[in-house]
Amino acid sequence: MDVERVCVIGLGLMGGSLALALRGQATLVGLDAAAAARRQALQSGVFDRVTDDPAVGLRDAGAVILATPVRSILRLLDQLPSLRPDGCLVLDVGSTKGAITRAMAALPQSFEAIGGHPMCGKETAGFAAATPDLYRDHTFILCRNARTTPRAEAFALDLLRHVGARPLFLPAGAHDTLVAATSHLPYVVAAVLMHSVAAVDDDRLWPVSAAGFRDTARLAGSDPRMMLDILLTNRAAVLDQLDHYQAHLAELKSLLLNNDEAALSQWLTAAQRHHTAYREIKRKA
Amino acid sequence: MDVERVCVIGLGLMGGSLALALRGQATLVGLDAAAAARRQALQSGVFDRVTDDPAVGLRDAGAVILATPVRSILRLLDQLPSLRPDGCLVLDVGSTKGAITRAMAALPQSFEAIGGHPMCGKETAGFAAATPDLYRDHTFILCRNARTTPRAEAFALDLLRHVGARPLFLPAGAHDTLVAATSHLPYVVAAVLMHSVAAVDDDRLWPVSAAGFRDTARLAGSDPRMMLDILLTNRAAVLDQLDHYQAHLAELKSLLLNNDEAALSQWLTAAQRHHTAYREIKRKA
Repeated sequence: MDVERVCVIGLGLMGGSLALALRGQATLVGLDAAAAARRQALQSGVFDRVTDDPAVGLRDAGAVILATPVRSILRLLDQLPSLRPDGCLVLDVGSTKGAITRAMAALPQSFEAIGGHPMCGKETAGFAAATPDLYRDHTFILCRNARTTPRAEAFALDLLRHVGARPLFLPAGAHDTLVAATSHLPYVVAAVLMHSVAAVDDDRLWPVSAAGFRDTARLAGSDPRMMLDILLTNRAAVLDQLDHYQAHLAELKSLLLNNDEAALSQWLTAAQRHHTAYREIKRKA
Repeated sequence: MDVERVCVIGLGLMGGSLALALRGQATLVGLDAAAAARRQALQSGVFDRVTDDPAVGLRDAGAVILATPVRSILRLLDQLPSLRPDGCLVLDVGSTKGAITRAMAALPQSFEAIGGHPMCGKETAGFAAATPDLYRDHTFILCRNARTTPRAEAFALDLLRHVGARPLFLPAGAHDTLVAATSHLPYVVAAVLMHSVAAVDDDRLWPVSAAGFRDTARLAGSDPRMMLDILLTNRAAVLDQLDHYQAHLAELKSLLLNNDEAALSQWLTAAQRHHTAYREIKRKA
C-alpha cells in the first residue's frame, strides 16, 4: 500500500479481520481500550505495536482506520485534530454513514477522509472471531464527503483490493435509507422474535425449534453496543422502516383474523415471489 | 420394516425424502396429483409403482404415509375409510397436529394411526429437492390419538430409526402452541420482512443487502400452499403469537422513538442474552 504506517482503532471482528487481511502490506498499529482484544491482537502477530493510548497509536500514522461502534467513531473524529495535528488519511467501517460523513467533513483540511461500510459480518463479535477472508467477495460501500480527496479514494480502493472486497460508491443519505431496510430492520425483526419467543414458558420450546427459527433469529445475537449506536445514529430511517413493517404485519394479521383465504393465499404467494426475485438478483450479482 | 407395502401420498420434499430414506425397506408406492412429481419419483427408482389414483395406490397397502399440505391430509383422512375399507397403518408428516389428531381419532377401528411432524425442511419444495438424509438427526414429533395402537407407535418408531430422526412425543395441543412460536411466527416475520423491504423502490436495494437480510428473510421462500394450510389450521395459536410479537415490536419502537438510551441498551442486551441461552441449549442437545 501507498501508506507506510496504518493505525487500526477497534480490534474487534471488523478491525481485526481487516488487519489480518492487510498482514505484510503496511506497518500496522493496533489500538483498543479492552485488554483482552489487545492481548489477542498481539498474539496474532500482525501488529507492529498494540496500545490503548490513541496518542501513541496515531503517532506517525499515515492512515487511520476507525473500526469501533459508530458513536465511538464520532468521538474519535472529534478528537483526531488534537491527537494527530499533522493530519492523515482516514477511513472508517461504521454501519451508518450520515453522522460520520458530517463529522469527516468538519475535519481540518490536513485530513483526507472517506467513509466506508463493508457489507459483511458475523453475529460473533471480537478479535477471536476475526478472519482475513471476512471481506472477500463482499460489497464495501464507500461514501464521499467534503474531505474526500483522490488520494483518500485511491487509499480506500487499494485497501479494498487487498482484502478482496467490491467497492460501491453511495451518498451517505442513500446508504442510511437502504441499510435501514436491508440490515437494521432485519436486526430488529430478529431481536423482537427472540424476545417474543423466549417469553413462552415451556421446557419443550427449544427442543421443538428447528433451522427456521435459528436463521430468522440469528441477528438477535449481534453485539448490543454496536446495534445501539446503529439504531441511535440512524433513528429516523429505522423508525420509518418499522412503520412500514408494522403496516405489512397488520395487513397479514387482518387477513388471518378474517379467515380471508383467497387474499391470504395471494399475500403468501407474493412473499415467495418477492423472495425468488431477490434471490435471482443476488445469484446473478 | 414390519410392513410389506407402504404408500406415500404427496411426493414433495418431505414425502420424497422419506421414500429415498426408506429405499429397500419396503415395497414403496408413490401417489401424487402432479405429473412432474410423479415423473421425478419414477426416475428416482425407489418406487415400485407411482400413480395419481388413490384407490390404486392404497390397494393392499399395509401403511400409508400422508405427506401433503395439512388440509389435503384432512381430506385424505376423511376419504380413507372408502379408499381402503380394510384399514391400515396411518402416519402423517403434516405441520399442524390438532385438526389431524381429531380426524385420525374419527377413523374406523380398522385403522391404526399416529400423527407426526418432522422438524426439518428447506425453503425449496418438490421431489427434486428431496434427499435421503433430510430427516437425519432432526427431531420428529409424534402425537398420539384415539386410534394410536402399540403397533402404530412401533411402526412410526421403526420408520424414524430408518430415516435417522429422533422421536419426541407431544400432545397435539402442546405441539401446535409450540410450533406457532418457533416455526409459524418466524415464517410470518420473514414473509412480512420480504413484503416490507421489497416495497423500497431503489435499484441499489439488493446490491446493498447482505447475509443478515438473506437469513432473516429465508423462510419467506416457503411454499405458500403449505404455509396457507398451516396458518389456517393453527390460526388461533398463530394469532396469539402475532399479538405477543406486535407488543414486543411496539415496545422496541417506543424506546427508539423516546430516545431512551438506557432502556434501549438493556432491551438489546436482553435479546442477545436470550439468543445466547437458546444457542447454548441447542448446542448441548
